[in-house]
Amino acid sequence: MTAGGYAATVMQRCDVLGACSEEAGRLTRPFASQAMHKVHEHVTTWMKAAGMAVRTDHVGNLLGRYEGGNGGTSTLILGSHLDSVRDAGKYDGPLGVMVAIAAVQRLHDSGSRLPFAIEVVGFAAEEGLRYGIPYLGSRALAGVFDEVDLERTDAQGVTMADAIRAFGGDPGRLAEDRWNGGHLLGYVEVHIEQGPVLEARDLPVGVVSAINGQSRYRLIFTGEAAHAGTTPMDRRKDALAAAAEFVVAVEAEARKTDGLVATVGQLVVNPGVTNVVPGEVVLSLDVRHAEDKVRLERSDLLLLRAGDIAGRRGVSLQSETIAGTPSVPCSPRLAGLLTQAVEGSGYQAITLGSGAGHDAAVMAGITDMAMLFVRCKGGISHNPAESVTEQDVTVALDALGKFMELLPARR
Amino acid sequence: MTAGGYAATVMQRCDVLGACSEEAGRLTRPFASQAMHKVHEHVTTWMKAAGMAVRTDHVGNLLGRYEGGNGGTSTLILGSHLDSVRDAGKYDGPLGVMVAIAAVQRLHDSGSRLPFAIEVVGFAAEEGLRYGIPYLGSRALAGVFDEVDLERTDAQGVTMADAIRAFGGDPGRLAEDRWNGGHLLGYVEVHIEQGPVLEARDLPVGVVSAINGQSRYRLIFTGEAAHAGTTPMDRRKDALAAAAEFVVAVEAEARKTDGLVATVGQLVVNPGVTNVVPGEVVLSLDVRHAEDKVRLERSDLLLLRAGDIAGRRGVSLQSETIAGTPSVPCSPRLAGLLTQAVEGSGYQAITLGSGAGHDAAVMAGITDMAMLFVRCKGGISHNPAESVTEQDVTVALDALGKFMELLPARR
Repeated sequence: MTAGGYAATVMQRCDVLGACSEEAGRLTRPFASQAMHKVHEHVTTWMKAAGMAVRTDHVGNLLGRYEGGNGGTSTLILGSHLDSVRDAGKYDGPLGVMVAIAAVQRLHDSGSRLPFAIEVVGFAAEEGLRYGIPYLGSRALAGVFDEVDLERTDAQGVTMADAIRAFGGDPGRLAEDRWNGGHLLGYVEVHIEQGPVLEARDLPVGVVSAINGQSRYRLIFTGEAAHAGTTPMDRRKDALAAAAEFVVAVEAEARKTDGLVATVGQLVVNPGVTNVVPGEVVLSLDVRHAEDKVRLERSDLLLLRAGDIAGRRGVSLQSETIAGTPSVPCSPRLAGLLTQAVEGSGYQAITLGSGAGHDAAVMAGITDMAMLFVRCKGGISHNPAESVTEQDVTVALDALGKFMELLPARR
Repeated sequence: MTAGGYAATVMQRCDVLGACSEEAGRLTRPFASQAMHKVHEHVTTWMKAAGMAVRTDHVGNLLGRYEGGNGGTSTLILGSHLDSVRDAGKYDGPLGVMVAIAAVQRLHDSGSRLPFAIEVVGFAAEEGLRYGIPYLGSRALAGVFDEVDLERTDAQGVTMADAIRAFGGDPGRLAEDRWNGGHLLGYVEVHIEQGPVLEARDLPVGVVSAINGQSRYRLIFTGEAAHAGTTPMDRRKDALAAAAEFVVAVEAEARKTDGLVATVGQLVVNPGVTNVVPGEVVLSLDVRHAEDKVRLERSDLLLLRAGDIAGRRGVSLQSETIAGTPSVPCSPRLAGLLTQAVEGSGYQAITLGSGAGHDAAVMAGITDMAMLFVRCKGGISHNPAESVTEQDVTVALDALGKFMELLPARR
């Protein structure tokens, strides 16, 4: 069978998994849910058909192992996540697992083994839908699961510990989920881009350079609520006018810096009524860049701008850092091999940053990591309109196969 | 007793009425409430002490009549409202009624009658707190009460008709509330400014030129929700960035036009989460000016600007006119007499527009209307911090007395 034939199977399987949902009429698949049980049944069947030995760990990762030949004892992990956001698309996560299984199936069908084992992982929860925190599966595999999180409850009051028990795991033995299969060659994740860059460049796939760092801030502009009819323009301390000036400045500054994205996604006006000059605005600022230095410098600059705007208007400003995660660079060695593989498939291999977080960022804690992005229609993700083409999946599958051929059994 | 003595009484009475509330610890006095009953008891006593005949009409206005001398058959109405907003100050409304009663008390104490009768009205509801519509009392007195509103219900499901019945009126006989007392000389309302102009000019009182017209719009900017991490700046259709540019433009345009106020008081972002580029923003625009022509021209210009901003950004714009009320000019004749009176009291008499609506705007439908504004601290109103000084009330009371002396018995 050609790569195209395997890609058609990948597409069909994404459809099958897309129908495994906790909600009628739309795809919502939380951590340790009934829908996830159903997904595990399907994926187990497919892994076995590809010659893999299948197991589930305590946190709820599904792992299939295809042994290497010639006494190879190292392992390459391929994977992505099997959970989803609410009202999700069917490719974010499952595509990477299905492409990995298809790559193994090709080896199996041709009766070949590589000089290293391949472990395909379907991670238990990357999105954080049920318990508000992401990367549960990869944190367990990387040995950085925080057991304090076991006491968290979902919307129905079920603790994570109970959810794990109900799914068949033992929350007291999560430490055993940590990778203990010997030497790792790396972790490679195929994922939809979730952005518009590849589409704009007319390319089926792209090699990820880094998972961008992220800074999140909360800013509060406090002016003076006043009567919208009786307060002359020059006597106002309008918190929204100040915030609006800041939003415009954020956009302008971000446009000036290559690769920087800065977003005000949340903005709440108080009192927020038609006939009152706003007295307070609370807003979020999200800044991301592949290079931490650039992100932090630009973030500082934006906070200074906010202070200038507030000061000039007699409005006060409070700002608070909500979160800051450093950029996680992909392994230049693995990314280089992916680049070679993509070029070997006949396509230009651009590198691009990942604006979204991925299990790969966690896996980087225990091994070299690389990612291959697949073009998605309109850059749309976290949405039922999420769409990839079979042709692009064919390229991804082909490149992943070539990458594995290029990968030395020992580094 | 000097005007100062009467002003001290006005201040005390505002304190007494300020304690008549439906809510413990703060002043909230809705239409036809128990708190309003208590206010009517107090005000009835004070009106009678000033030599007035007191009655309540069906809608719940309290009216005190002090007859004229020398066979005078015309009437001057003085008044303001006795209801309040939630968590109100104690001067917005009651001050005007108390000053009017004090002015009559002075006549009564000196045994004098003017060549016309004075009718002091404490309006039943100007704020619209209970039923969402303002001017219930003045609309009944001016004969423009809309009986459809009787079916409206308050937060407890009580219809306005039932509330009127419970307060002692007959909702079927509201037409009888219309003024039928013969020839009117005019309606004059003393009210706190609710804005900062008099304070900035260091003046105790000011003569109102007009009750400004008002245009209200709802604008919806629709862009494209997108991932805040993966969508490059140049691929965004950020509805909030567009709205923010508009908010800044509204402020800049309004500052250019003397006397214009334009406010974005409400602004809601969808989906309104930290890591999503806003796909939609709904906002309110409130534009006011003493001259309708200026207001309408500037409003049109602002809507054009919104369209330009949206168009340039590939964002779509819908706009909807929510309300438009024309400016109501004060009677130049009565305003001229008030100016003379203020100057006669030894103060510069500036004229200023009223940015807020008042019962006076409704009363203009049946007679000449004028208003005298009293300075309030910091321009603060609709707030427990509302504050006026006894000195300023003295000036207002003195000016109102002089005005009545200047007013011819027949125009």
